[in-house]
Amino acid sequence: MLKQISILGSTGSIGKQALEVVDSLPDHFRIFGLAAGANIELLKEQVKKYKPEIISVKDEQVALELKKEIANVKILWGREGLTEIAGCGENNLVLIAVSGINGLFPTLAAINNKVDIALANKETLVSAGNIVMERARNNNVSILPVDSEHSAIHQCINNKDINQIKKLIVTGSGGPFREKIYSEIANATVKETLSHPRWSMGDKITVDSATLMNKGLEVIEAHWLFGIDYKDIEVVIHPQSIVHSAVEFKDGSVIAQLGIPSMHIPIQYALTYPDRYEGLETGSLSLTETARLDFEKPDLEKFPCLKLAYEAGIKGGTYPAVLNALNEEAVYAFLNGKIRLTEICKLVEKGLEVHTSIKNPNLDDIIHSDNWAREFAKEFLNKITVS
Amino acid sequence: MLKQISILGSTGSIGKQALEVVDSLPDHFRIFGLAAGANIELLKEQVKKYKPEIISVKDEQVALELKKEIANVKILWGREGLTEIAGCGENNLVLIAVSGINGLFPTLAAINNKVDIALANKETLVSAGNIVMERARNNNVSILPVDSEHSAIHQCINNKDINQIKKLIVTGSGGPFREKIYSEIANATVKETLSHPRWSMGDKITVDSATLMNKGLEVIEAHWLFGIDYKDIEVVIHPQSIVHSAVEFKDGSVIAQLGIPSMHIPIQYALTYPDRYEGLETGSLSLTETARLDFEKPDLEKFPCLKLAYEAGIKGGTYPAVLNALNEEAVYAFLNGKIRLTEICKLVEKGLEVHTSIKNPNLDDIIHSDNWAREFAKEFLNKITVS
Repeated sequence: MLKQISILGSTGSIGKQALEVVDSLPDHFRIFGLAAGANIELLKEQVKKYKPEIISVKDEQVALELKKEIANVKILWGREGLTEIAGCGENNLVLIAVSGINGLFPTLAAINNKVDIALANKETLVSAGNIVMERARNNNVSILPVDSEHSAIHQCINNKDINQIKKLIVTGSGGPFREKIYSEIANATVKETLSHPRWSMGDKITVDSATLMNKGLEVIEAHWLFGIDYKDIEVVIHPQSIVHSAVEFKDGSVIAQLGIPSMHIPIQYALTYPDRYEGLETGSLSLTETARLDFEKPDLEKFPCLKLAYEAGIKGGTYPAVLNALNEEAVYAFLNGKIRLTEICKLVEKGLEVHTSIKNPNLDDIIHSDNWAREFAKEFLNKITVS
Repeated sequence: MLKQISILGSTGSIGKQALEVVDSLPDHFRIFGLAAGANIELLKEQVKKYKPEIISVKDEQVALELKKEIANVKILWGREGLTEIAGCGENNLVLIAVSGINGLFPTLAAINNKVDIALANKETLVSAGNIVMERARNNNVSILPVDSEHSAIHQCINNKDINQIKKLIVTGSGGPFREKIYSEIANATVKETLSHPRWSMGDKITVDSATLMNKGLEVIEAHWLFGIDYKDIEVVIHPQSIVHSAVEFKDGSVIAQLGIPSMHIPIQYALTYPDRYEGLETGSLSLTETARLDFEKPDLEKFPCLKLAYEAGIKGGTYPAVLNALNEEAVYAFLNGKIRLTEICKLVEKGLEVHTSIKNPNLDDIIHSDNWAREFAKEFLNKITVS
């Protein structure tokens, strides 16, 4: 069966790999819509190749210029463009691979129009997990995770009753500073921070991997996606990144998903679910060549961001949205050389302390808290002098 | 829902553990029938506790004596006793935990009467996999594996289309001689051979674990249970016995089942399938306490039994039945001090060389080949002098 799909964020890391998956399974997919941010040249190539019916770019000006160049394609822009593509009933599935809070509105638009979602955007569930999951349930929309950890858990649960689950085991490589001491982490350069030992990803998520905030955001995401209590979600550091996550059932049996560290596998799984195809030649996992898998507890003293994320998740309300926004601002400040790596956590901690959370937040509450957090971060950053 | 079950081999290692599982889930099971071999005292205790409607023992004489002691229970004996219990339509499930070729006839009786089977007897599928699986399919009978490896694979496949499978990965601890050289294995005592590093099992299977014949029999069993080609079944040595086996799907994703090395988990899974319950306190797997998992290729030079089993499986016909019978006789000769451990393989190899296989064997062909192999083994053993 031909699936008609749209890819929001088609020129980013996940979007490009998703199109490689589509290339490898040409009989299974047709591209309905594409949306990109800054990389207009690549978007133009994609339009030529995949002939979508609708595209969207970030800026109105760029959209108007593109209209002169490209015929027979509906061209949109901005948040409204993303939302319109995601909500089109022509989609069998929309891949939300835009970053940050931008993922939230197209996700809700897809849900409202009963379009299934492959979700590669963490912030949507971290900030608004209660709203997104409730609406998805009510509209009978599937949210298929693209993150390797959540894809692993989805594969391990495999439609079993969640009452059979004892706990989720979310694995993480531990990032580039797993074996460093705190003072070394405090002095880490941007370049060192971006040298992830296992995964090649965008800059923001690579910094989050170095602080373990990424694992923390994943714990919150897993809580919402699978409906599991925080006390039953364990983070395990696994430097080889072969076991992508696991589920322990009540009878003591643990089901784990393994594979080479390649995003092609979880992306393809989300796009082809419930089927599996050979698809891309990503190479087979050889356990005997891998030879050894290690597991250890995360060090919360060295990586306090993970602790903060658990705390924000457990407290609930608008705390996770604030955690996410504070972190995002802090990470960009780090990437721009304004603060040290360890100051990311300090900024987040301070902001969470000051924040007045709203219980059972609605969408406005979440957006408001997100804005508040970004303002707080800016003020905090203005006070800091880079050493 | 209360499941009515019978346990054939209730006083053996698997049978006793199955009753522990039943004890832990008293609302889920009622014992309909029990069958035991030599341990009559334990059987009597079990009858008192579980109040089955029907029991069977090995010998007629014992059965007649029991009839004087036990009222209101139907008492049978011998192969016919096993077969009658297994075939009773009152069973929702029968656990076949008798050893050797004795498992075959009750298995077929259960299938004929549309009773689902929890199969803990390897020889049934190794010797007569073609017949058993075809009849089970025709009668829509489920065969739920109890072996930890096959239970793991069953959990990993989880009803997915087998066309989505690339390969099965059958793990094994490597046994007590994994790190020994061949000459040490040749001189291994019975005691050393029975000191399995991970699993506490009966003597016969523990010897098979030391020669890796056990893995070979499991490969043949997996071939029949899951309908996978021998070339797509890989044996991986994994000394910690935490990953109990795995399945690689065509998209490169590997699903593995893990757990502490306890037979309670696969036994309970087979009895409660498709549900999972807390059941026995077997302890939870802690990946961080386990800390490290290793994987290596099996050494076929040191453990030629595994190679012989693959060859017999691929050749098919009556070769697997002969492999199994030759091995069984050889193992008992070793346990009785008549031959060295490495001579088990020599006997099996010789017998397979001489055997004239029958293609698409019927039940008579299989029984005949089994008998032939045991005669061959006896003659071979008569010629050998223990050094």
